[in-house]
Amino acid sequence: MAVDKKFSDQATTVGELNQYVEDFMVARNWHRERTPKNLAMSIAIEAAEIMEHFQWGDREDYTPEKLGPEKMDEIRMEVADVMIFMLSFCRSLGIDLAEAVQAKQEKNEVRFPADVVRRVD
Amino acid sequence: MAVDKKFSDQATTVGELNQYVEDFMVARNWHRERTPKNLAMSIAIEAAEIMEHFQWGDREDYTPEKLGPEKMDEIRMEVADVMIFMLSFCRSLGIDLAEAVQAKQEKNEVRFPADVVRRVD
Amino acid sequence: MAVDKKFSDQATTVGELNQYVEDFMVARNWHRERTPKNLAMSIAIEAAEIMEHFQWGDREDYTPEKLGPEKMDEIRMEVADVMIFMLSFCRSLGIDLAEAVQAKQEKNEVRFPADVVRRVD
Amino acid sequence: MAVDKKFSDQATTVGELNQYVEDFMVARNWHRERTPKNLAMSIAIEAAEIMEHFQWGDREDYTPEKLGPEKMDEIRMEVADVMIFMLSFCRSLGIDLAEAVQAKQEKNEVRFPADVVRRVD
Repeated sequence: MAVDKKFSDQATTVGELNQYVEDFMVARNWHRERTPKNLAMSIAIEAAEIMEHFQWGDREDYTPEKLGPEKMDEIRMEVADVMIFMLSFCRSLGIDLAEAVQAKQEKNEVRFPADVVRRVD
Repeated sequence: MAVDKKFSDQATTVGELNQYVEDFMVARNWHRERTPKNLAMSIAIEAAEIMEHFQWGDREDYTPEKLGPEKMDEIRMEVADVMIFMLSFCRSLGIDLAEAVQAKQEKNEVRFPADVVRRVD
Repeated sequence: MAVDKKFSDQATTVGELNQYVEDFMVARNWHRERTPKNLAMSIAIEAAEIMEHFQWGDREDYTPEKLGPEKMDEIRMEVADVMIFMLSFCRSLGIDLAEAVQAKQEKNEVRFPADVVRRVD
Repeated sequence: MAVDKKFSDQATTVGELNQYVEDFMVARNWHRERTPKNLAMSIAIEAAEIMEHFQWGDREDYTPEKLGPEKMDEIRMEVADVMIFMLSFCRSLGIDLAEAVQAKQEKNEVRFPADVVRRVD
């Protein structure tokens, strides 16, 4: 299952990530439980675990420096969990995630025109 | 803000998606509210909106065919929302998402060895 | 289904609330979908809807005065939704909610002794 | 902090639960962090922890018998956590929870008339 390539946002396509997650699932024969419904729950469960790291403080408490390397690493792993379930969810329903993001952003461009909604500090 | 390229999982890197979302935010000067804490909430809020589509039925109700094209499109937009906030969140803390997924999956490989946990139907 | 009594925290037991919600469900014969799994999802979905009202601001933005009567009323309805699903969930598994709160608080008393954890401003 | 009375849905008002939770917080001077925003997050975080117990199975897996006493006790504690934060949230904004449930149910009575929406099996 090892992937030789070192993944990075710069060099890795969404499809490569998706395939990587899928190979992991196939190797374990885990598809029976990975229904869209269960995966939707999983995304929400992991999203809540990201939130736990930001539960009681204010904005100034949550810089990488103040969080520190250990907490940052925990957060990184929670984010990965959301993403892994997102990719499985998309695969379970045949959704192309990059295409969906573009389609949604194009709607957002219309809904929130930059020259109208631009925040002026 | 228009992106000429047509995005797809096959051809689009996570970094390109991230840059696309960031450009949208910069054009609107929205960074002040996009704190890690607020974005963590946003991910969870949008994740719940995915779940809404799967609230009352059983596994057999949730195929692309039974959901139908209109519902599938709504789901696609909810998934995009989670992803957009995920990318903003990662940027707000300097997290490389593809790298994080690989790091987490490597832990999962050790934690769930395929030959041990493989489901036998 | 109308309940003559005017409910209030002061005068209404958890059991009365529970019965009120149950009568509503019985009258609609909705129990088939109200499985513990689906109700757990519902609680989370409605909890996210509370959060939506607090997504982008800081602590000083969220007083009853600043929120205003209309927003306060929306929040009140979201809180009610969480509670309604909580009561259905408890009933679906035979959980006594008041008893559970007491049991949990007794654990919390031990885990967070007031004289040790008391915040000194 | 000990409460002599044994709480139960039958005999305990929502207000008594609310006061019990409030006394716990006062004794620890924890109000500074217990803002409506943070408590809304807490409700969602704990709601996700309830869901974790129902992540991969189907309806038939989640009876009290199949869950077993140990798991049931864990679920009971998660439900209590949601309720505790719900009560703190309500107090932070001056919301009467029982009153809110009644107001919402009265809307639901109108929105879902029993004779119209009643499920026929």
